[in-house]
Amino acid sequence: MTHSLRLGVAGLGTVGAAVIRMIARRADALTAATGREIRVTAVAARDRNRDRGLDLAGVRWFDDAAEMARSGEVDCVVELIGGAEGKAKETVEAALAAGKQVVTANKALLAHHGAALARAAEGAGVALAFEASVAGGIPVVKALREGLPGNAVARVYGILNGTCNYILSRMEREGLTFEACLKDAQALGYAEADPTFDVEGFDTAHKLAILTSLAFGTTVDAEGVSVEGISRVQPLDLRMADELGYRIKLLGVAQATEAGIEQRVHPTMVPKSSAIAQVMGVTNAVTIDADAVGELTLIGPGAGGEATASAVVADIADVASGLVRPAFGRPSATLRPSSRVEMQRHEGGYYIRLTVHDRPGVAAGVATRMAERAISLESILQRRDESAAVDDPRGRSGRPVPLVLITYAATEGAIRAALDAIAADGLLAESPQLIRIERE
Amino acid sequence: MTHSLRLGVAGLGTVGAAVIRMIARRADALTAATGREIRVTAVAARDRNRDRGLDLAGVRWFDDAAEMARSGEVDCVVELIGGAEGKAKETVEAALAAGKQVVTANKALLAHHGAALARAAEGAGVALAFEASVAGGIPVVKALREGLPGNAVARVYGILNGTCNYILSRMEREGLTFEACLKDAQALGYAEADPTFDVEGFDTAHKLAILTSLAFGTTVDAEGVSVEGISRVQPLDLRMADELGYRIKLLGVAQATEAGIEQRVHPTMVPKSSAIAQVMGVTNAVTIDADAVGELTLIGPGAGGEATASAVVADIADVASGLVRPAFGRPSATLRPSSRVEMQRHEGGYYIRLTVHDRPGVAAGVATRMAERAISLESILQRRDESAAVDDPRGRSGRPVPLVLITYAATEGAIRAALDAIAADGLLAESPQLIRIERE
Repeated sequence: MTHSLRLGVAGLGTVGAAVIRMIARRADALTAATGREIRVTAVAARDRNRDRGLDLAGVRWFDDAAEMARSGEVDCVVELIGGAEGKAKETVEAALAAGKQVVTANKALLAHHGAALARAAEGAGVALAFEASVAGGIPVVKALREGLPGNAVARVYGILNGTCNYILSRMEREGLTFEACLKDAQALGYAEADPTFDVEGFDTAHKLAILTSLAFGTTVDAEGVSVEGISRVQPLDLRMADELGYRIKLLGVAQATEAGIEQRVHPTMVPKSSAIAQVMGVTNAVTIDADAVGELTLIGPGAGGEATASAVVADIADVASGLVRPAFGRPSATLRPSSRVEMQRHEGGYYIRLTVHDRPGVAAGVATRMAERAISLESILQRRDESAAVDDPRGRSGRPVPLVLITYAATEGAIRAALDAIAADGLLAESPQLIRIERE
Repeated sequence: MTHSLRLGVAGLGTVGAAVIRMIARRADALTAATGREIRVTAVAARDRNRDRGLDLAGVRWFDDAAEMARSGEVDCVVELIGGAEGKAKETVEAALAAGKQVVTANKALLAHHGAALARAAEGAGVALAFEASVAGGIPVVKALREGLPGNAVARVYGILNGTCNYILSRMEREGLTFEACLKDAQALGYAEADPTFDVEGFDTAHKLAILTSLAFGTTVDAEGVSVEGISRVQPLDLRMADELGYRIKLLGVAQATEAGIEQRVHPTMVPKSSAIAQVMGVTNAVTIDADAVGELTLIGPGAGGEATASAVVADIADVASGLVRPAFGRPSATLRPSSRVEMQRHEGGYYIRLTVHDRPGVAAGVATRMAERAISLESILQRRDESAAVDDPRGRSGRPVPLVLITYAATEGAIRAALDAIAADGLLAESPQLIRIERE
């Protein structure tokens, strides 16, 4: 048997503790699978006195993770500190510079510095593995990097943030507002005290940027992702979606278009019958559209200490097996630069909810402005609230009422121009709601 | 760059031709991903004159695949002949004996001789890769073998045969009989002229045996699978399932129990809300229940030349990357012997459709026999057809009518004993229908 693989674990939060317990619990199976003993020989964390319920006898403690990464006592650094900059980055860079293998769960680091780190890993001839950085326990990095080399990917999209999916699921099921569901999510520990990073889509954007690079062979480019969160989604939108045969999910979507690879995160209408529409609560899912396999969907836990540790340990086992593949599936030098495609050029179906003054001719005025920009309407739904009908025997209250349009494929530029014209006509009582439709 | 990987493709049917085209189409991407050129240098098939639309200039033709496997001109043999015995087995054995890497899509070969072939591959220090043997284009072998080493698997189950799922989907949607849907499936090329292998569950059993070995670290044991097909499922069962909140799918299920690993293939009631219930038509799906990740579901195409070739080419890329892991995820010597668990010991919920004589006291008689064996009933549905009510003002026609029971968890032995007693009481007009329920 080859000599054992000595791990240095940087960061002893929920995931770090779960990784250490899992390595111990699965020691025999891991050795059988990889042909090597895997041992945690060092850990690094700030608070040495906190009780984490871990047996760290014989394990060397470092106060400084970067120092651990440089030490001669570890072969593989497991970075679980988190964050795009600071100690996490310093630790991974130090490990690669010292020729150590690196396993990380750090999506922000990969999304912002993935290209440079991948080059460094290649230069050192070591692995930079990051299965846990996207979609928690779902082995989607492996599927994209190793499972589909015969395929050209056309599109990859997914529910990549459990907090948002939990909130949208509850809003849909219980007719609650975003604010009420967010509060519950915070009470349950599904959302942070400052939820911006999750609910405004930035977490999803980081994960999407990593998937895009793997799927399309482009340089990871988090800044190139167009991002819109779920805080503007209203219970009314979920009810309308339901009536129209859709559900609303926060998706990250990367898609090959003639102009380049679109990367976008936004609330999305998906057909109720699609696999991704069934995914409720904190569960994640990723669908890959590729030329040979067609459609492949992976569903599983997107977060949680054990599920994330499962992905980290899979990477560690690959390292122990001697698997060193380029981080993003092909050598950095062959990754194409990311081409940024403006959302104005996005083409797709749209759900548009206007709040119009309930007056004669409003629907006709709206439809005309759409037609002028060659936007075809699949359906128009006008819904007066019942109190309005009582006020006015002709059924027109003059009050604001919703008018919902579903369009066939149109460019976002054309849609925005039509909405500007409708606003300029004075037909709108509120700014419009616009939700993109993703068809299978 | 390392020297090129020379492939010998044995079998030039739909999948073989798709593999050869894919290797050519994705040449640059495959080289970038693996660091090596991948070339088809030899092929073996019986009919040299058939036009397959392939450019085989410069490729050596062998009439005998085993001879090709022994030749010095290939590094890796891609076996696409099929069948558990005969030329396929001879070719793979010859390749391993000659120290060649082997990639195969042959589920029957793996299910029946996987253990011996894995030993031979280990002895030779080469790969025996078989992603395409289970669930076509879904990378489930990779997920189980490499994606979950930190997990103890509790259960793996899936829709592994597209023909059966197509037939059941159409029976459900259109209320048609098994026979009518089978005929359509044959006309569309989804079912063979002799459909026994698919519809009686043997194909699913082969695939399940392979998944079981990967998931539980046991020796592959196709003979240990309890098998029941879909030919006895009636439109009435699908209607009752719908009313009760279930769909019927042919599942392969491998489950850890106190008595050992159950391996069973049978029509199964799954909750309509489950991910696997959404899978319609020829699509396949596999769900893995494991201690760390919880539930992981993979959905995708289970057959077709391109999808299967996608899996074959993924294995070829792994071989080109120098990845040699034990075939079933751990060395053969450490695989535990398969423990066969009799279906009598299976414990779960049951759907039981009795055809009873419509007489007073029948439901009471049935319920009593169940209670005697401590079987708890979740629901009883008695449905008289409308003509019967007209015949007899008291609502009892004496004619055969369906009586449907849903049980809580019970052993199959207890259920069978209760049904024998009910039959002995003379209450049954036909032999009972029994469908197992698989809960999430």
